[in-house]
Amino acid sequence: MFPEGAAPRTSQTRQERIDYGRSVLDAVDGEAGQRVMRALEDVAPVLGEQVLIGFGEIYARPQLSPRDRQLVTLGMLTALGGCEPQLEVHVNAALNVGLTPEEIVEALLHSSAYCGFPRALNATFAAKRVFEERGLLPLGSEAASAQ
Amino acid sequence: MFPEGAAPRTSQTRQERIDYGRSVLDAVDGEAGQRVMRALEDVAPVLGEQVLIGFGEIYARPQLSPRDRQLVTLGMLTALGGCEPQLEVHVNAALNVGLTPEEIVEALLHSSAYCGFPRALNATFAAKRVFEERGLLPLGSEAASAQ
Amino acid sequence: MFPEGAAPRTSQTRQERIDYGRSVLDAVDGEAGQRVMRALEDVAPVLGEQVLIGFGEIYARPQLSPRDRQLVTLGMLTALGGCEPQLEVHVNAALNVGLTPEEIVEALLHSSAYCGFPRALNATFAAKRVFEERGLLPLGSEAASAQ
Amino acid sequence: MFPEGAAPRTSQTRQERIDYGRSVLDAVDGEAGQRVMRALEDVAPVLGEQVLIGFGEIYARPQLSPRDRQLVTLGMLTALGGCEPQLEVHVNAALNVGLTPEEIVEALLHSSAYCGFPRALNATFAAKRVFEERGLLPLGSEAASAQ
Amino acid sequence: MFPEGAAPRTSQTRQERIDYGRSVLDAVDGEAGQRVMRALEDVAPVLGEQVLIGFGEIYARPQLSPRDRQLVTLGMLTALGGCEPQLEVHVNAALNVGLTPEEIVEALLHSSAYCGFPRALNATFAAKRVFEERGLLPLGSEAASAQ
Amino acid sequence: MFPEGAAPRTSQTRQERIDYGRSVLDAVDGEAGQRVMRALEDVAPVLGEQVLIGFGEIYARPQLSPRDRQLVTLGMLTALGGCEPQLEVHVNAALNVGLTPEEIVEALLHSSAYCGFPRALNATFAAKRVFEERGLLPLGSEAASAQ
Repeated sequence: MFPEGAAPRTSQTRQERIDYGRSVLDAVDGEAGQRVMRALEDVAPVLGEQVLIGFGEIYARPQLSPRDRQLVTLGMLTALGGCEPQLEVHVNAALNVGLTPEEIVEALLHSSAYCGFPRALNATFAAKRVFEERGLLPLGSEAASAQ
Repeated sequence: MFPEGAAPRTSQTRQERIDYGRSVLDAVDGEAGQRVMRALEDVAPVLGEQVLIGFGEIYARPQLSPRDRQLVTLGMLTALGGCEPQLEVHVNAALNVGLTPEEIVEALLHSSAYCGFPRALNATFAAKRVFEERGLLPLGSEAASAQ
Repeated sequence: MFPEGAAPRTSQTRQERIDYGRSVLDAVDGEAGQRVMRALEDVAPVLGEQVLIGFGEIYARPQLSPRDRQLVTLGMLTALGGCEPQLEVHVNAALNVGLTPEEIVEALLHSSAYCGFPRALNATFAAKRVFEERGLLPLGSEAASAQ
Repeated sequence: MFPEGAAPRTSQTRQERIDYGRSVLDAVDGEAGQRVMRALEDVAPVLGEQVLIGFGEIYARPQLSPRDRQLVTLGMLTALGGCEPQLEVHVNAALNVGLTPEEIVEALLHSSAYCGFPRALNATFAAKRVFEERGLLPLGSEAASAQ
Repeated sequence: MFPEGAAPRTSQTRQERIDYGRSVLDAVDGEAGQRVMRALEDVAPVLGEQVLIGFGEIYARPQLSPRDRQLVTLGMLTALGGCEPQLEVHVNAALNVGLTPEEIVEALLHSSAYCGFPRALNATFAAKRVFEERGLLPLGSEAASAQ
Repeated sequence: MFPEGAAPRTSQTRQERIDYGRSVLDAVDGEAGQRVMRALEDVAPVLGEQVLIGFGEIYARPQLSPRDRQLVTLGMLTALGGCEPQLEVHVNAALNVGLTPEEIVEALLHSSAYCGFPRALNATFAAKRVFEERGLLPLGSEAASAQ
C-alpha cells in the first residue's frame, strides 16, 4: 500500500524523508492528516515535519501491518484520554487500512476493561462522529447483537 | 433506593442483568445516564449493555453507600482528566444521592492537593455547569466563606 | 478529631500554619506521613512544609468529614496510577479515620469501572500490603461473598 | 481456542459466568493470570470475580480475534503507564495467542510516536523481562535490523 | 517583576496572602488569570483563594525565575493532557515573562519526544490560539526553518 | 556543548544521524543514557536508534538551550507519572547542563501546584536518589530556608 520506489530509512536527505513520510501519511490518514499538517504551517512547521518523518520511519516498517498498527493506536489514544481529535484521524485511518466499523467498536468495547468506561465512551463517541461523516451508521446487526 | 425485588448478581439471564442495571442507572444518574445510553444505540449498543451490567453488579452492592460511591467517583473522574462529560453525569448523580453542592465543591477543592489545580479547576467548572442547569447558583455562604 | 485551640486559616505566621498542619497530618496519616516528611528533610524541606500547610488548610475544613476525604483520595490515587507509595499512606489514613478494610476494598472494586482493572488491581495490592502490615488479613466473609 | 460447550453471555448463573471466564483467562494468560487471581483471594475476591466475568464476556466475543485484542491491550497498557505488572501478564498473553516477540517489540516502537519514549521504554523493558523468562533473547535479526 | 513591599511567606493573615497572590497572578497571567478567578466566584471561591495563595507562595520564590517556571509549566500541562484552557493561560503567561513564541513552539516540539505527538499537537494548537489572539502569526522564519 | 562539525538535520544517512544522536545523548545524559541504550540492544535496538535520532534532531536545535530543555523535561516526566527511571536519567542530565540541585528541587516544588503532591513527591524522591549517588546531599541552606 505504500508508495513504490521509496528507499525509506537509508541514505537520504531530510527533505526526502519528509516527502516520503507525507506519502505514507496520505495513504494512511488521507484528508484528515493533511488538515493537521496545514494547521501547523504558520505556527510549528517543524513539528509537522517531525510527524511526517515519524510516519515515514515507523509506519512503513514491514514488521507490523498497517491494520495491526491502527489497533495499537486506537488502544493508545483511548487510554491517553483527551486525544479525541487524534482519535478521529485514526478511526478514519483504521477504516482506510481495512478495519471494519464493527471491529473498531469492538476494540473500544475491549478497552473499557483496561481504561474504564469513561475513556471507552469518549473514544466511542469520537468513532461515532467519523462513522456518521462517512455515512456508516447505524452499524449492522453483528455489533448490535450481544452475541 | 434501589428497586425492590431484584435478585442482583445471582442466577439470571443477561437480559435480566441489563434490565436491573438500567433500573439502577435510572435511580442514580437519571436523565443524564439515559442520554448516554441512547447515544450508543446506533453505534455500540453492547458497550451500553456492559455499562448497565456494571452498574447493576457494582452500584447495588451494600458494602458502600451510593453517596460514598459518588465521592470515590468524583475523585477518579477529576484525576483522570478529559472526562468532563462523565463528570457532569456524576455531579448530577452526586446531587441525586444526597451530596450537597457545597460538599461536591469541597471534594474538588480537596482534589487540588492530589491532582493539581488544573484538573481541580476543570472539574469545578463541570460542576458549575450542572449547578447552573439545576438553578443552584450562587452557592450559599458556607462555601463562599474561607472558614 | 483535630487539635483544639487551633485557629486555622486566619491570621497566623507561616510557622504556625506548618505546626498546625503537622498536627493534622499526625492525626490523619500517623507514622506513615511522618516518614515522608523526614525523607524530605535533606532534599526538599519546603515541599514538606507545603504539604503540611496544605493539610492544615484543607483537611481541617468542616465542609467534608475526614472519612469522606479519604474516599475521594482513594479514588484519585487509584485513577492517577503510579502513586502506590501515596496509596499505602492513604489506606492507612482511611483506616485511621474509620473506613473499614471492606469499605476500602469495595471502593477499589468500584473504581475498576471508571479506571479499568489494571489501576484497580494495583491499588488493591497496595491496600493488601497495608492490611497485611496491620494484621487485618484475611478480610471477613462480607467482602469474600459475592452478595 | 476457547472452551467448547460454553454458552457465554446468555442465561447462566453468576458462578457459571465466573467459571467460564476462568477458562478464558487460563487460555489467554496462563499461569500469570492465575497468580493474580490467587493474590486477590484473601483481600478482594469479588474484584477477581469481576475480572473473570469481564474476561468471559469480552474476550470470547468473535468480533475481534485474540491476537487483535492483545495488540489493542499492549497499546493501552503502554499508554496508561505504571501498569508494568499487567504488561508482563499481557506480553505473555500476546505470545500465547500468536504474536511474535518481533511484532510485540514493533508495537512498542510504534507506540513511542503516540506516548513518547519514556512510556515506550518502560513497556519494552517489561516485555524484555518476559522474553528473558521464556528464553527468547536475543531477538532475531529482523528486529535488530533497521530495515 | 513582583510587587515591592510584600513580605511573602512570613507572618501575615490569610487575606494578606490572598492579596499578595493576586498581585503575583496579575503580573504573570494578566487578564486570563482574572477571568478564571471571576468564574469561580459563585461556585468555589475558596478554590480561587487557594490558587492565589499557591501563586503567592511559590511563584515569588527567587530560586527559579518566572521564565524558568513557565518552561516547567508548559511541559507539565502538555504532558497532563486535557488541560487546554490552562495551557492558553500559561502560553499567555509565558509570553508575559519573556519567552518568545518561537521558544514556546520549540518547547512543545521538544515535548513530542516525551509525551508523543498527540499531546504535543494539542498543546501546539492551544498555543496557536493564543498567538492568533495576540496577532503574532505567522511566526518568523526561525521557527519555520528546519535548521 | 554539542559536537562541532556535525551537520544535523540535513542530507545524511540513517547511520550518520544515529551517530550524531549518540554524541548528543552522551553530552546530555552521560553514562545513564548509555545504560539504557545497552539494555535495548538484545530486545529493541531500533527503539534505541529512534531515541538517538530523536536526540540528534531535537536536542541540538538552537531555538532552546539544553538547560531550558531539561526544565521542560522535568515538568513533563513529573506530570506523566510512573517515569521514575527516566526522571533519574534527566535529573542527571539537568545537573550536566547546568541546573543546580536547588533549581531542580524548586522546579519539582513548583510542579506540585499543577500535578499535585503525589507526583511531586515521587519526582523529588527520584531526584534525591540521584543527588545521593553524586554526593550532593544535604542540599544547601537556600533550599532549606522557606524564604
